[in-house]
Amino acid sequence: MTGWRVGLDIGGTKIHGVLVGPDGGVRAEHRAATVVGPEGIVRGAVDAVLALRGEVPDDGAPGADRLDAVGIGVPGVVDPATGSVRYAMNLGLDAEPFALAEAVSARLDGVRVVLENDLNATAVGATVLLDGVGDDLAYLALGTGVAVGLVLDGHLRRGRFGLAGEVGHLPVDPEGLECPCGQRGCLELYASGSGLARQFPHTGPEPIAAVVFAAADAGDSLAVGVRDRLLDGVAEMTQILVLSLDVGSVVLGGGIARLGESLLAGVRSRLERREGSSEFLAASGLASRVRLAPTNVPVGAVGAALILEGGER
Amino acid sequence: MTGWRVGLDIGGTKIHGVLVGPDGGVRAEHRAATVVGPEGIVRGAVDAVLALRGEVPDDGAPGADRLDAVGIGVPGVVDPATGSVRYAMNLGLDAEPFALAEAVSARLDGVRVVLENDLNATAVGATVLLDGVGDDLAYLALGTGVAVGLVLDGHLRRGRFGLAGEVGHLPVDPEGLECPCGQRGCLELYASGSGLARQFPHTGPEPIAAVVFAAADAGDSLAVGVRDRLLDGVAEMTQILVLSLDVGSVVLGGGIARLGESLLAGVRSRLERREGSSEFLAASGLASRVRLAPTNVPVGAVGAALILEGGER
Repeated sequence: MTGWRVGLDIGGTKIHGVLVGPDGGVRAEHRAATVVGPEGIVRGAVDAVLALRGEVPDDGAPGADRLDAVGIGVPGVVDPATGSVRYAMNLGLDAEPFALAEAVSARLDGVRVVLENDLNATAVGATVLLDGVGDDLAYLALGTGVAVGLVLDGHLRRGRFGLAGEVGHLPVDPEGLECPCGQRGCLELYASGSGLARQFPHTGPEPIAAVVFAAADAGDSLAVGVRDRLLDGVAEMTQILVLSLDVGSVVLGGGIARLGESLLAGVRSRLERREGSSEFLAASGLASRVRLAPTNVPVGAVGAALILEGGER
Repeated sequence: MTGWRVGLDIGGTKIHGVLVGPDGGVRAEHRAATVVGPEGIVRGAVDAVLALRGEVPDDGAPGADRLDAVGIGVPGVVDPATGSVRYAMNLGLDAEPFALAEAVSARLDGVRVVLENDLNATAVGATVLLDGVGDDLAYLALGTGVAVGLVLDGHLRRGRFGLAGEVGHLPVDPEGLECPCGQRGCLELYASGSGLARQFPHTGPEPIAAVVFAAADAGDSLAVGVRDRLLDGVAEMTQILVLSLDVGSVVLGGGIARLGESLLAGVRSRLERREGSSEFLAASGLASRVRLAPTNVPVGAVGAALILEGGER
């Protein structure tokens, strides 16, 4: 893939687009508000592509020919083979498969459009945007829920039934909170925004993770417990990902990762404690594999621009 | 890979070899006792290859040209790129890398020899020897310890540092038994032969798993607890493998899997119970993904014959 490409990350509130040049560098960015529903999503995607295509240097070719391909990351259940998406509730797309790639391509002179789940696209983006990570990582998205995008030996791992990376529904406490999934004590209940909100009720505009960490720093004992269970849960998921998959890196992303160094330091100190009591774990280098996702970089959009069919980069 | 190949599975007590024809079928088998130490291992491998090469139909070509390649599976830490192995204690090979592939090739007119970890070879073998499994599975070897071989989307997954599949060292009980690895309550303590022996001391020649299951069937309450923790542990590892990797199948192998249907039924019933309380797990089809490894088929030797460089089949 050596031509000019556009990558789009379409979320529930905004569309983020990048123009990637033949050298792989980001040459232009575009942001717009999302308009939900099939027509709004298609129009938003097309407008973003047109705006970014206008930034391709004019080499005399007709505008439509200047762009090699478009990659789009969307939340929901994506079938990359057909370029369709289901259950993207944030985008106003329901259980019926919607052929988004085809609809966008049809309005852009038939340019090749590839569709991928947004977290998978983000995981691919992290392989190029994080120094020293290389082509092997688990992108652990700590958002409202927990989800994981996997790039193994340079290949996107979607899993046989789209369940890869559902480590949030591994139970760690049989006496724990009831999970909407039907189990008890799932990791997601402790290491997600919804889990934090459930344990530490709070009203206000601040992100719940920041509220919990600030309260814990101020000595609130409930908050200390909630924070520690979050850090333990992330440490546990890291150990699970490393000991089942041996991923080179575990990249912490999602809203909770905006905590930044206080999250990273807390998770690492727990992993170092585990390493301190186990030569086996120490040799596995658990703590050193954890990284923070880059911020203020459109990881998902860049990843979408890099994805080819079949999930290869 | 369309020519005649030999696959060898070299274990601590015996060498098992197969001759695989251009159609992928097993045309001949060979068994011999292992002689430990570098010279014994090389000689045993060479003798096995020569015996099997003699079974290739004579098409007029010199004997040395009739064989396309040799694949060898050995326990220990294997570097497939250099064809060397370390820490194969069962074979009398220590921390020093031993270039086994080169040594065998040198005595066989320079035929191509590929070396792989025996469990990885076995996982590859299971993809072709188990009906309906396809090219995506976790081979869960329940032996003296616990280990997992992974074939994902047709690619062998070795992991970044050779740790892939170390799910046996995920702790499930913070108050549990001390593990030699330094942690407490690791899954391997409950779901391995060494773990069973530790919980249910017994002298005699019968395999410990068979002893425990027979005693449990006879109503021995200690044995019932040991058996149930084994079945719970295998169910837990299955859930971890499916929810982290979404492998198409989890194949139960190793000495404990010789229990056969009583193991499979026990694990499946536990997974079905989990599915009964969770729509999410029910949709994941946990129980239906578990399979028994084939018995009386040289899975490791066949897998070794199928492995090419780079871990692809």
